[in-house]
Amino acid sequence: MRTVGVDLGGTKCLAVALEGGTVVDECRVQTPVGETALLDALADVATSVGAGPDVLGVGVGVPGLVDRGGVLRFAPNLPGVVDLDIKAELELRLGGQVRVDNDATCAAWGERQAGAAQGYDDVILVTLGTGIGGGIVAGGALLRGANGFAGEIGHMVVDPDGPDCPCGQRGCWERFASGSGLGRLAQQAAAEGRAAQVLALAGGDPARVRGEHVTAAAAEGDLEAHAVLAQLGWWVALGLANLANVFDPQAFVLGGGLVEAGELLLDPVRAAFGQLLTGASHRPAVAIVPATLGEHAGAIGAACLFDIGREIAPA
Amino acid sequence: MRTVGVDLGGTKCLAVALEGGTVVDECRVQTPVGETALLDALADVATSVGAGPDVLGVGVGVPGLVDRGGVLRFAPNLPGVVDLDIKAELELRLGGQVRVDNDATCAAWGERQAGAAQGYDDVILVTLGTGIGGGIVAGGALLRGANGFAGEIGHMVVDPDGPDCPCGQRGCWERFASGSGLGRLAQQAAAEGRAAQVLALAGGDPARVRGEHVTAAAAEGDLEAHAVLAQLGWWVALGLANLANVFDPQAFVLGGGLVEAGELLLDPVRAAFGQLLTGASHRPAVAIVPATLGEHAGAIGAACLFDIGREIAPA
Repeated sequence: MRTVGVDLGGTKCLAVALEGGTVVDECRVQTPVGETALLDALADVATSVGAGPDVLGVGVGVPGLVDRGGVLRFAPNLPGVVDLDIKAELELRLGGQVRVDNDATCAAWGERQAGAAQGYDDVILVTLGTGIGGGIVAGGALLRGANGFAGEIGHMVVDPDGPDCPCGQRGCWERFASGSGLGRLAQQAAAEGRAAQVLALAGGDPARVRGEHVTAAAAEGDLEAHAVLAQLGWWVALGLANLANVFDPQAFVLGGGLVEAGELLLDPVRAAFGQLLTGASHRPAVAIVPATLGEHAGAIGAACLFDIGREIAPA
Repeated sequence: MRTVGVDLGGTKCLAVALEGGTVVDECRVQTPVGETALLDALADVATSVGAGPDVLGVGVGVPGLVDRGGVLRFAPNLPGVVDLDIKAELELRLGGQVRVDNDATCAAWGERQAGAAQGYDDVILVTLGTGIGGGIVAGGALLRGANGFAGEIGHMVVDPDGPDCPCGQRGCWERFASGSGLGRLAQQAAAEGRAAQVLALAGGDPARVRGEHVTAAAAEGDLEAHAVLAQLGWWVALGLANLANVFDPQAFVLGGGLVEAGELLLDPVRAAFGQLLTGASHRPAVAIVPATLGEHAGAIGAACLFDIGREIAPA
């Protein structure tokens, strides 16, 4: 039977239809501004891949703090959206059952059910993009927390004297182990004369150096760019080690734009992780692997909120 | 029916017998050195409170990394103990079923079943002593991780430039939010002339200032000592906020020697936590309460590993 999943992002909505674990249809639209326009767009994009009274249900992944009743409480990336009852409003519009969860939580479930995290009962998805998103599978089930807000791993403070974070804190992990963190490391390297090729790609101005200049230079074999990626890898590994000390997972699945750097990033992450994890020599190795579902992970995972077998519905 | 729980510490073993959730007997012995002596002592102390073929089982909480088969893999506080199969060895000696788990995990379960965490399905026990121990209850069950090693919360790195930790890392949370962290904050305050009464209690030598001088002066109403406790509270809150971002718990239960300072510590912890948690104004309040079972928490929790109703046995 068909299930539909929608991934709501700050700029686009992506809907997929799943049958027997396979994507059979998809559709995307721009994310409009305003609560009513947003709800209408979600309903439209879901309907266009088949949502309606005869599908098993529609899952929706949304950015921000979503409570277990499907109300989006806090969404810094969706201007003007506060306390929006997405589940109830979409059930009205679609006439069927809707489940709503955090987008990164959905992406973790997608990778667990259909991607790189298959076979792991204790696994954490870490999405390294502009910021860091996280979704946690513990004991084979999604870890949601008391209110549905679990998984805000990017806001672990790893350096109280670190850069300001839009969340209001200083030194959150996502200030370091993200695209913006890579940009800062690269600007510093360029300013200190440790990134000649990277600097050339940015037109010679250290202030214009960005993360993509590093990955481009690294892909061409530039050793200075490799060194900057290794610095980034150390920061990634620091947060992974923190999470491994707390959760003891079998694996981390890394997604998001930064992971397009591939082994150039993953190798230094693995090396640093082995150094940073407490008692590493007494533990089985923790796998660190790239995500495989790409931008579809969230929508697939949202559709998989209706997977039978394990109860993962909002309480 | 009677269950027996034993809490193995670096200096003592405490055994309790539980009937109907009540402690009906207890016994303690010094922790001996050496694997065989240790196993014999555990068997003796358990037997002296009634362990044997006719009790439901014996639970044992041990410090360090315990795998889900009951083997103690890594125990920095028990010299000479490596890869010790405590479950099998004790079952031989006692002739009944034995379950083994990490001591802080047991303490969390004790507080959950019989102490300050009753009624909470998502709650984290944080033990603030010389170091920091942790036990996590998520969705009403103990979170053990893939190997049983979950809950090493004291080794989250919160400042990569921080003090060296015996675990091999730098800037672990337990370097700041522990008895040794308080001592360092107090020595700094004394050296900078911000802790006259604390310094007097230490005989006038800043290098001899310890955490207990701070709590003693604070209990007498010394405002400078209160300020040092508030600094400690900030560091405690920093780690709690990290954990709350990740787990979204209903409550934290704080145990360990530092919590004897009571509200003098808990008030600044709560105030700083409210500042540090991402999106705090959009979340229900997270309770931060003192543990109530004291030194018995681990042994009671170990005995409660045999509580019927929820499957919490090692896999």
